Amino acid sequence: MKKTLLLLSLVAAPALAGEGKWTPQQVLELDPAWLKAQGLQVPPQRLWDPKRGTGLLAGAVNVGGCTGAFIAETGLIITNHHCVFSIIQEHSSPQRDLITQGFLAKSREEELPGKGSRVQVPRSFKDVTKEMFAAVPEGADDLTRQKALERKEKELVAECEKRPATRCRVASFDGGVQFVLSDSVELADVRLVYAPPRAVGEYGGEEDNWMWPRHTGDFSIIRAYAAPDGSAAKYSAQNVPYKAEFFFPLATEGVKPDDFVMVLGYPGTTFRALLAEDMAERQARLYPRVVDVYGELIRILEEEGEKDPAGKIAVASHLKGLHNRYKNSGGQLAGLKRGRIVEKQREAEAAVVAWAEKRKEYAGALKARAELLSLQAEKAKTFEREFLLDSVRGVVKAPALAVLLARLSQERVKPDLERRPEFMERELPRLADRLEREQKNLFTAADKRMFLALVRRAQGLGEGERIAAIDKHFGRTYAEKDVSAKLDALYASTKVLDLAERQKMAGETEAQLRARKDPLLDFGLDLSAEVVALEEQRDRRAGANVRLMPEWRRAVMAHAGKPVAPDANSTLRVTFAKVKGYAPRDGALYTPQTTLAGVMEKHTGQEPFDVPEKVAAAAEAKKYGPWVDKRLKDVPVNFLADADTTGGNSGSPTVNGKGQLVGVNFDRVWENVANDFGYNPDVARNVNVDVRYVLWLLDQVEDADGLLRELGVRKGPKAQERR
Amino acid sequence: MKKTLLLLSLVAAPALAGEGKWTPQQVLELDPAWLKAQGLQVPPQRLWDPKRGTGLLAGAVNVGGCTGAFIAETGLIITNHHCVFSIIQEHSSPQRDLITQGFLAKSREEELPGKGSRVQVPRSFKDVTKEMFAAVPEGADDLTRQKALERKEKELVAECEKRPATRCRVASFDGGVQFVLSDSVELADVRLVYAPPRAVGEYGGEEDNWMWPRHTGDFSIIRAYAAPDGSAAKYSAQNVPYKAEFFFPLATEGVKPDDFVMVLGYPGTTFRALLAEDMAERQARLYPRVVDVYGELIRILEEEGEKDPAGKIAVASHLKGLHNRYKNSGGQLAGLKRGRIVEKQREAEAAVVAWAEKRKEYAGALKARAELLSLQAEKAKTFEREFLLDSVRGVVKAPALAVLLARLSQERVKPDLERRPEFMERELPRLADRLEREQKNLFTAADKRMFLALVRRAQGLGEGERIAAIDKHFGRTYAEKDVSAKLDALYASTKVLDLAERQKMAGETEAQLRARKDPLLDFGLDLSAEVVALEEQRDRRAGANVRLMPEWRRAVMAHAGKPVAPDANSTLRVTFAKVKGYAPRDGALYTPQTTLAGVMEKHTGQEPFDVPEKVAAAAEAKKYGPWVDKRLKDVPVNFLADADTTGGNSGSPTVNGKGQLVGVNFDRVWENVANDFGYNPDVARNVNVDVRYVLWLLDQVEDADGLLRELGVRKGPKAQERR
Repeated sequence: MKKTLLLLSLVAAPALAGEGKWTPQQVLELDPAWLKAQGLQVPPQRLWDPKRGTGLLAGAVNVGGCTGAFIAETGLIITNHHCVFSIIQEHSSPQRDLITQGFLAKSREEELPGKGSRVQVPRSFKDVTKEMFAAVPEGADDLTRQKALERKEKELVAECEKRPATRCRVASFDGGVQFVLSDSVELADVRLVYAPPRAVGEYGGEEDNWMWPRHTGDFSIIRAYAAPDGSAAKYSAQNVPYKAEFFFPLATEGVKPDDFVMVLGYPGTTFRALLAEDMAERQARLYPRVVDVYGELIRILEEEGEKDPAGKIAVASHLKGLHNRYKNSGGQLAGLKRGRIVEKQREAEAAVVAWAEKRKEYAGALKARAELLSLQAEKAKTFEREFLLDSVRGVVKAPALAVLLARLSQERVKPDLERRPEFMERELPRLADRLEREQKNLFTAADKRMFLALVRRAQGLGEGERIAAIDKHFGRTYAEKDVSAKLDALYASTKVLDLAERQKMAGETEAQLRARKDPLLDFGLDLSAEVVALEEQRDRRAGANVRLMPEWRRAVMAHAGKPVAPDANSTLRVTFAKVKGYAPRDGALYTPQTTLAGVMEKHTGQEPFDVPEKVAAAAEAKKYGPWVDKRLKDVPVNFLADADTTGGNSGSPTVNGKGQLVGVNFDRVWENVANDFGYNPDVARNVNVDVRYVLWLLDQVEDADGLLRELGVRKGPKAQERR
Repeated sequence: MKKTLLLLSLVAAPALAGEGKWTPQQVLELDPAWLKAQGLQVPPQRLWDPKRGTGLLAGAVNVGGCTGAFIAETGLIITNHHCVFSIIQEHSSPQRDLITQGFLAKSREEELPGKGSRVQVPRSFKDVTKEMFAAVPEGADDLTRQKALERKEKELVAECEKRPATRCRVASFDGGVQFVLSDSVELADVRLVYAPPRAVGEYGGEEDNWMWPRHTGDFSIIRAYAAPDGSAAKYSAQNVPYKAEFFFPLATEGVKPDDFVMVLGYPGTTFRALLAEDMAERQARLYPRVVDVYGELIRILEEEGEKDPAGKIAVASHLKGLHNRYKNSGGQLAGLKRGRIVEKQREAEAAVVAWAEKRKEYAGALKARAELLSLQAEKAKTFEREFLLDSVRGVVKAPALAVLLARLSQERVKPDLERRPEFMERELPRLADRLEREQKNLFTAADKRMFLALVRRAQGLGEGERIAAIDKHFGRTYAEKDVSAKLDALYASTKVLDLAERQKMAGETEAQLRARKDPLLDFGLDLSAEVVALEEQRDRRAGANVRLMPEWRRAVMAHAGKPVAPDANSTLRVTFAKVKGYAPRDGALYTPQTTLAGVMEKHTGQEPFDVPEKVAAAAEAKKYGPWVDKRLKDVPVNFLADADTTGGNSGSPTVNGKGQLVGVNFDRVWENVANDFGYNPDVARNVNVDVRYVLWLLDQVEDADGLLRELGVRKGPKAQERR
């Protein structure tokens, strides 16, 4: 009986075709016959070689939180336009506006290096579950357990990163069922090869974000360089293109509805293993609170921005971030409701419970679940306080900087391995960057009003959940004039918002900071005591979670009797899908492909629908070249698939059954935002740039002959006629 | 050659299947084989008997500007909920809120008579083209021609209406190619039998108006009564149900995609025969001006309504009308652009011109077109003035009432046949109704601000197009304080806004009105001089049009070589169509049917998406009875067809090839608003209530056994089980 179950779980088909962000190892556990029937034409072992611990999947690389994909042996990488926007921005000036015009390097010499841009190419993965748990002392309480695991993780990473140009990390799967150490080569010489005009790469802007039908050319091409001997190296004129072992040739024939595709990449975080009650809490409180609080902050930034053009520019990127989170929360709420996700999770959980109750060996799993539920109920009691505390130190610039400086002074005095991970030596350069970068985002008038709004809310908290630093600095009850006056004084006299002073502060001890008697710093120091306490509380919760969750998850997986993909955790995954439309609502269907005609249909000449002239001219003259889709009689622009993606999959290669690139993933549809909690096959759709739109732009619009040759693509005849 | 052409034009298929609002006579000119292939199962002669001048098409009746359809021999008529709303309103009270609850008469005695509600049943049609033109004196100028035609029309109508309970009218076709006298029986005893709750009949409200996907149960059932001897009669308890000669039995099996349907009714006005230049003028000036001016007036009504709840109620119906016109104009603009309608008309016109230039017999047509073009250019010069003058006397209540009283005093002294048609004796009762009815729509604060807005615009007119009455009463240049003060004084001292005084004024002579020295009346009297001059100018234009347009249209029709349906003119028409979805934009398709599940999907519990409890309960319990569609696995609610409809088709029966009712037309889709200028098969879609939604409501929700029996429908088993 047990053996059968094991076999089943080794080679089986998943419950729903599109569901599952599979780890490379799991791909080999899926039934090869099923994969073949889906449309996979290469043997699964080409995707992943268990002996070497690598394979074609490793052609998907990490590009600063996004995914990218090698598309030629010569280090060419395709990713999203929004993922390399900072390189384009870095080289733009009013005289040479690459953001607006786009960029094409006519030769390797013209390629533009990106300061701080990095690409991580996976080299190997190692199961370190045993080492991790061995580090936990016998009889450790939850806090000790978490601290021991954290320390072991740091040690493993430090050991791993002794190799040059190496970036490592330990990721936990299924709440701690497994820990894996990943080892990547970090390439630090990354150069821009091609970026379309922003009006192509961001066509539709905020308005079309999360939406379908979509018409965005959200892709760019970069190249990774290495030292002449092939090893990773910093930027140097002597460097040569990095030789990619695995890459995805371009599929010039593209895709059609119902075609099989795979999406590879580094999905960030999902919540499908949460207990239903935990999901319900997020539905009932977290997302509504984000909509409420962030909604207020967005209004403030918008209003203040209207009064001051310079301020408007300063808060633009902050506003974009808040908007994205705000819209996302709205989508989560709509999707949780529409997909009945909490209800379904309750039903699924009840089934596992009923099943486990009949099996003595899972008594521990049931006990673990019961304890998780009571921990959850406990945590819910302090939700409002934690949400506001996180907002004060995370969203409003002035207090956030003050808390950061305070915490830095406290952590830097500790040995490296004892610091919180974000203050370890390896992170300090990034932290210094941030302290500098935030200067251009500062807009005091707006910041002060945001702070005021959060103080007002904090002063309304119940007796058991006060934020002491707020009470101390602004009083226990809200009086607008009073708090406003205090904030005015605080912003007027602090030096934290002065870049040079702030950089000095970053090197000072806690005592030195206190001696400054800077009112904002004082607030930050006071709040940091509460932050530390909260961090400890969260560590304790994490320790309990890693003690309990694996037990419960093992029951869930045994009950499933077939592979269950773990929640996303920014590690390499692959999802198997089909090109497919969907029904957004009664009476409407979305077809899975859009076209150039659709791009022009949306064109208004106004942002965000302002097609660049050269693109419009080629589209209107129907200069399609060989990139026309016979069925659509037009160049395909974007397509949908039912791939199982989330944030972090931006720039993911979308690949056909032969391992050729057919598109670049860049978004999910609105109805699919709550996919993070559960896969709903009716609306689980990711949005991809069609490779033929990429090729059409390079060929018919940009005449990028050299680049096309390098990609092994024949230029279309029409464009040649044109010259 | 000529003979072949004649044959072709007698029996031919139209260019596009769905295009054409055919007159009953034209149905017999269409190729019967083509009609059969489309799906017509009855012989065309059953639709219309040329000898009798009537037929099944006459089962569609005129219900106060809307269309209705007999659905049983016992006088039952189905039409739109919004077409009989006044009857529901009349019998509603806070104690018995029929608007909210809906209404079902359990017996004939319970049926609710509608004050002033009338149904016109067509009896015969007669070509009077010869009589009309014979009335025009030899060598008449354009004004004389128009006056002579108008007088002849009045004489023909007066003669026709000598029969009791008869309503007649002369309609011109193709700009005067043909004139037809229609003779209808007017039934004045009309009673409400069934109305759904407003939340069903108006589900989606303004938000869904003109939209698809749609989920509105916009239908009601009334019954026409006659004297015991079968003749038309006023309301009396002795009356008996009117015996309908033609009626449409309900098709209980409903429709499916691609099914053939006909839509019968009284479409109001379309503009397809306009010269392209005339269309272009509407696109360039009329609709943008409506969007601009009406947009401002809507903002005023909304702002003032927010300040005063009673005022808000007073202006609600006015606001609804303005909104409808405003949204319609936006739709016309979008559709004219999307459908390239003006460009297509230019191309079509150029083809006719090229064809006519080769044929001597059409030299006159070309000359007529040239003269029409120069008249059009002339008219365009005074557009702005006319638009504002019409707005002052048509949209703002106070000046509109004043002008109406002034014109009434001037016209009433003339012999009946010499008055303008709207002031003839037969219209005076309706006019008295209006003078009374407007009292509840008056809201001085808003009215004054609207007047001010129009005065400001009028004071900005160029030298050649001043409105003299405005200049005289408010000065030549705008100074807000000054004009405001004048308006305050005017509204404060006038008696026109007092109902009793106004009713007295309606009986007074022009001299009596002048002697009152009422400042609003004085303004109205001054403006009426300009109104009279404008009316004369328009009569002159109409006279020119009827002289020129028929010549041009005869060339257009000869060039077409097959039947061309004339523009809508509120006469009986039929359009042949298919049940069909459409693609509103790249990447999206609208399917042609919606369902109960879609009704519930939109339900928010808030207006306008608040499904009544009894409907929600039946929907959620899936109590579909026999009204489920097998393919949809749900009760169909609305469906689309590519029928060629316009305003006036509200309540039109949508009928299958056997002449059975499959739905009730109630709207067009947004993309199809500019259909009035040209039929675009890609987006020409009308919106219908599915007969199975009607039957489901009557059967599963209302248990309307008696009514269903009368309609010859077997009740569903599920509902019977319930009891």
